[in-house]
Formats: sequence, C-alpha cells, structure tokens
Amino acid sequence: MRYLLMKALVLREKGVWPQLEEYPSPEPKEGEVLVSLLAAALNHRDLWIVKGLYPGIRYPVILGSDGMGLLEGREVIINPGMNWGDDERVQSKAFSILGLPANGTLADYVVVPAKQIYDKPSHLSVEEAAALPLAGLTAYRVLFSRCGLQAGERVLITGVGGGVALMACQMALAAGAEVFVSSGSDEKLQKVKALGVAGGVNYREKDWPARLKAMAGGFDVIIDSAGGKGFAALPDLCRPAARIGLYGGTCGAITGLSPQRLFWYQLNILGSTMGSDRDFRLMLDFVNRHQLRPLVDQVFPLSRGPEAFAYLDQGRQLGKVVLKLGA
Amino acid sequence: MRYLLMKALVLREKGVWPQLEEYPSPEPKEGEVLVSLLAAALNHRDLWIVKGLYPGIRYPVILGSDGMGLLEGREVIINPGMNWGDDERVQSKAFSILGLPANGTLADYVVVPAKQIYDKPSHLSVEEAAALPLAGLTAYRVLFSRCGLQAGERVLITGVGGGVALMACQMALAAGAEVFVSSGSDEKLQKVKALGVAGGVNYREKDWPARLKAMAGGFDVIIDSAGGKGFAALPDLCRPAARIGLYGGTCGAITGLSPQRLFWYQLNILGSTMGSDRDFRLMLDFVNRHQLRPLVDQVFPLSRGPEAFAYLDQGRQLGKVVLKLGA
Repeated sequence: MRYLLMKALVLREKGVWPQLEEYPSPEPKEGEVLVSLLAAALNHRDLWIVKGLYPGIRYPVILGSDGMGLLEGREVIINPGMNWGDDERVQSKAFSILGLPANGTLADYVVVPAKQIYDKPSHLSVEEAAALPLAGLTAYRVLFSRCGLQAGERVLITGVGGGVALMACQMALAAGAEVFVSSGSDEKLQKVKALGVAGGVNYREKDWPARLKAMAGGFDVIIDSAGGKGFAALPDLCRPAARIGLYGGTCGAITGLSPQRLFWYQLNILGSTMGSDRDFRLMLDFVNRHQLRPLVDQVFPLSRGPEAFAYLDQGRQLGKVVLKLGA
Repeated sequence: MRYLLMKALVLREKGVWPQLEEYPSPEPKEGEVLVSLLAAALNHRDLWIVKGLYPGIRYPVILGSDGMGLLEGREVIINPGMNWGDDERVQSKAFSILGLPANGTLADYVVVPAKQIYDKPSHLSVEEAAALPLAGLTAYRVLFSRCGLQAGERVLITGVGGGVALMACQMALAAGAEVFVSSGSDEKLQKVKALGVAGGVNYREKDWPARLKAMAGGFDVIIDSAGGKGFAALPDLCRPAARIGLYGGTCGAITGLSPQRLFWYQLNILGSTMGSDRDFRLMLDFVNRHQLRPLVDQVFPLSRGPEAFAYLDQGRQLGKVVLKLGA
C-alpha cells in the first residue's frame, strides 16, 4: 500500500498541543470529496479536546471544524455539522462535528461528504471564509432559528470576546438590532464599539447587571454561553416575552434563578448548539445579503500551529485565530 | 345613597380568613354586567393574598377568581383574566385577575366587563363549571399555547395535587398524551391513576428522578410550578427538543441547573402564567370537545367560607374547593 502524504497538525495525546507532521492524505470514498484547504480556523472546541474535556476523544486525530479550500478549482467552505437529521428542532444521534471523530481541517487536505460543501461567499477573503462556518452556524441558529431575533429589538450578547458571541454580535447588528455586550476585558469592550455596539459592561464589576439595566432598560433577546451564577441576573434584564438563548456553560451550573420572573414575564430559555443544514444555508444567505465579514484576529502558518493553539488559550484575541494552509 | 346588600366573604386584614358579611352589592357601569353567582371556587392565589404574599393587596376586598352564575337567565362562566391586551405572547401592564384589585366571586353577585362572560359548557354541573376558569386557563396556556403539546407525546406533571396541575393532567390525557405525575402524597398518586395516568412517583422519596426515568424513559413536555432544587432534575428527564413549562415557583429559586443538557438537547424552558382571551376561548373549545369535567373535591356553603379556606390551606384536597352561592 502506498500513501500520499500531507502536512497536518496531529493530536496524539492529552494536554500536548497538536504537532506538525507528515501524515497520510485522506482518500474520498463514494459520496465524499477531497478539499485542498487554503485556511482553517481554531475553535474553543479544539482546546477542550486537547485538554481532554470532550466526550469521545480518540488518538491520533486531526482537529479543526472550520475550513476553506478548493474543490476542482471552486472556492468552497465546509459545513462542519454532519448528519443533523430530519428534525429541525434537534440534531440526531448520528450528528457529529468535523474534527472529531472525523479528521478535520488542520491539514492541507480534508475529506468530507459532498453535501457538506458550499460556495465561499465571494466578498470574503480566504481567511475570513475559514473563520465563518462553526461560529457562524452556531450564532445564526441561537439568534434567529431559536430566538427569532427581529430588526429593532434590543439584544444583549454576554462574553462578546468568544468566537460565537462576536459573530452573534455582528449578525444582530446586521439584522438591525440594538446591541449591548458584556466582556471581562475593557479592551475588547472598547474594540467592539467600532462595530456599532450601543454599550457594554465589564462583568468583572460586581454591579454589571444594574449598570446594564441603567444603560439599556430591558432586552428582547439575550445570548449567553456562560450559565453559572451570573445567569440568574439575566431574567431581571429581560423585557416581557423575551428569549434567552443559551449555547454553552463555561461558568457551570445555573444557581439562584427566580421562577417568578420567568413565569410572570412569560420568558423563554432556549438551549441551542450548532445548527441544521437549513441553518447553515440560511446563515450563508444572511452573510451574503449583509456582506458580513467575520473578524480575524491573527493568522498563523500551519508550521506555527502549536503557537496558534497557545494564543487562543490565552483568550486575548477578538476574532478568530486562523491557520494558513496549502502554502 | 341607598345600598342593595348581598352576602360576601370579605377580607379585611392580613392573616384572617375572609368572613361572611352583608356587603353592598356592586352596580354595573357602562360595558359591565352583574352576574348572579351560583358557585365559586378557591385558588391558592386566594390563600397567598390572605397571607399577605401577593403584590397590590388592599382592604377590604372580596376575593375569588372563579365564578359560575346567571346573566339574564343564561348560565355563564367568567374569564378571570382581564385586560390581557393585544400581544398573545405576554399580558399587558393593565392585566389583572378578578378578585384583587377588582372584587371577586366569593359573593352572591359580581360585576365584570361584559367581554369576560362565556357560556357555561353544557355538560358541566354548576360546581364543575365554577372549578374551571382560572385553573383551566392557566393549564391550557402552559400545556398547549406555550408547550405545544401533541397527541402521543409523553408528559410529566409535577405536584399533581395542585389545581392547575390536576387540570393540566386531565387536559393532557384528553389530548391523547401519555401522562406521568409526581406528588408528595401517595394517596393522591393512587387517586389520579383512575384518571388514566400511566405512572407516578412521590417526590418526597430521594430517588424520584431515577424512578421516573426507569418508569418512563424521557419526556417531551414537563409541566412544573415548583422550581427550587428539584427543578434541576427535570432536564435530565427530557427527551431532545423537550419543553418545560413553568407556571409557578413554590419551592423558590432554581439551583444546580446544568447548561450542558439544556443546549445539547436543545431544550426549552417556557415561563407561563394565566392566559389570553384567545387562550380562554380555546380552553373552552377543548373542554367542550373532550367533554372534560374538572374534579371537585368538596363543596362548602358560603356561610362556611372560612372553613373552606382552612381546608384548602391544609392541602389534602384533590380537585377544586367550591363554594355554593345564591342559596
């Protein structure tokens, strides 16, 4: 048996950043295609897998859920959500995300089912296109498919430094919402103002809910991925009939949540993760229609992959960390 | 000035059950009608008001949200939710419930806006009709308008001894759902089996979530009015895309709620209280279509009103506590 080799970042053990290797290039089977990648982006999911904080980890594996590349000369991006199934409300048991268990995009080539392939939005650079798929899909679903955001509504995006949160912030602004944010970094709060954000608070200050309330009144939609103790403050920041979209739980269990506000205000807490094939198509339509450009914080060559992981892990970025491939 | 007098249960101070009095009979103004009441029902709301645990209490007041009576010879029931407003999603700021601030149904006569009046379902007795409005409205909205219950779905109703919970249980069964319940009383669990309930657990037993899981697998819809620590067990009892309808918070703040289950299962926590005029109409249609009969636990004459309050306060009833009026 002969192998074609490619460059890839390979994760071989827990706790060690994936390292650059010459690795067998994948071969497409029936219904699959081989994409020659030009750029990939990192996600916190990749960090959690390296740290062993994710179900179903196997070694070796090539991580990476976000990829942009060439397929027979055509510029394409990849929908990282595979086998969602027929129910728009929830993914099937067969659902998986590119980059574990299937080898992902941190390599010069990736093989995916042909139906995961979509045209790259033509207004995006190679790096911007690579930054879009997973964060764009997750943000679109929670904001629109789950919370039904409408133009003119007032939105709070917590922890806006996160990849999905920042994308949700950009999408909500593009949709004509009035957007407020929170962050643990004054520098990030300052930076997002340039996007058109109406106001923001640092959640490290104890009175952040009161400050947000004074600043914004109440919100129609709140997008959160923290949970924890801070979540209990969110219903008090809601207008009647508001929707709270929850797509993560980095601060752990929710405590001190008052039922009274939830039922008297007819509030909705809506869990959301990733998105369906339909969500992905609608997300691309939205990005094209609004000429939305994902923010790219920094671009690393594949050879500096471990450095890119370490950089994301420090959490100082605002925007995606992108790897340049195929050079 | 001359007054027509009527018999009424009048609340004059905190902590003392309303007492029977001769009280001025109300006079309808433009757009209002005078209903000659035949029966009324008590709700926990009435207990909370007596105990001073409700906003906007004033004295004296005639409590009572549920009433059945005669209007020009026509048998009618009263929608206790007033001024819901135009938004089906949530009540307006002008919304109020009959029986505080407006004088309610624990009297021989009540005045209400004419549009609160509906024909009594003809299959119901006077007492059953009086038992229906508030519990029926609240149960219908949380179960159908909010949680969108479908025939064939598996439902959990917690604390089935409560008036709304028991009504939700009867409605879910009538709608063709498979219904499980919890209660703090083995006797009540035994009694509801006769309604067609598939199974139940006593929530005083520590392992009630595991026992429910073993018994039922997972639920499509959960209806809860407790909140508190026990609420955190509910998402683990959910099927993917399930809806948890929350219409009360008798056990206080929700603690220990895991965000991971909420977002990965795309769950929905939906606050609900009372219902719109549309909900009331749909509820009556449902009750007529399914010939549903609210359970009446005990009927007291108005003269024994304080006793009826004390009986409800003991919490041993299964079904509504009704007062016979106009005798």
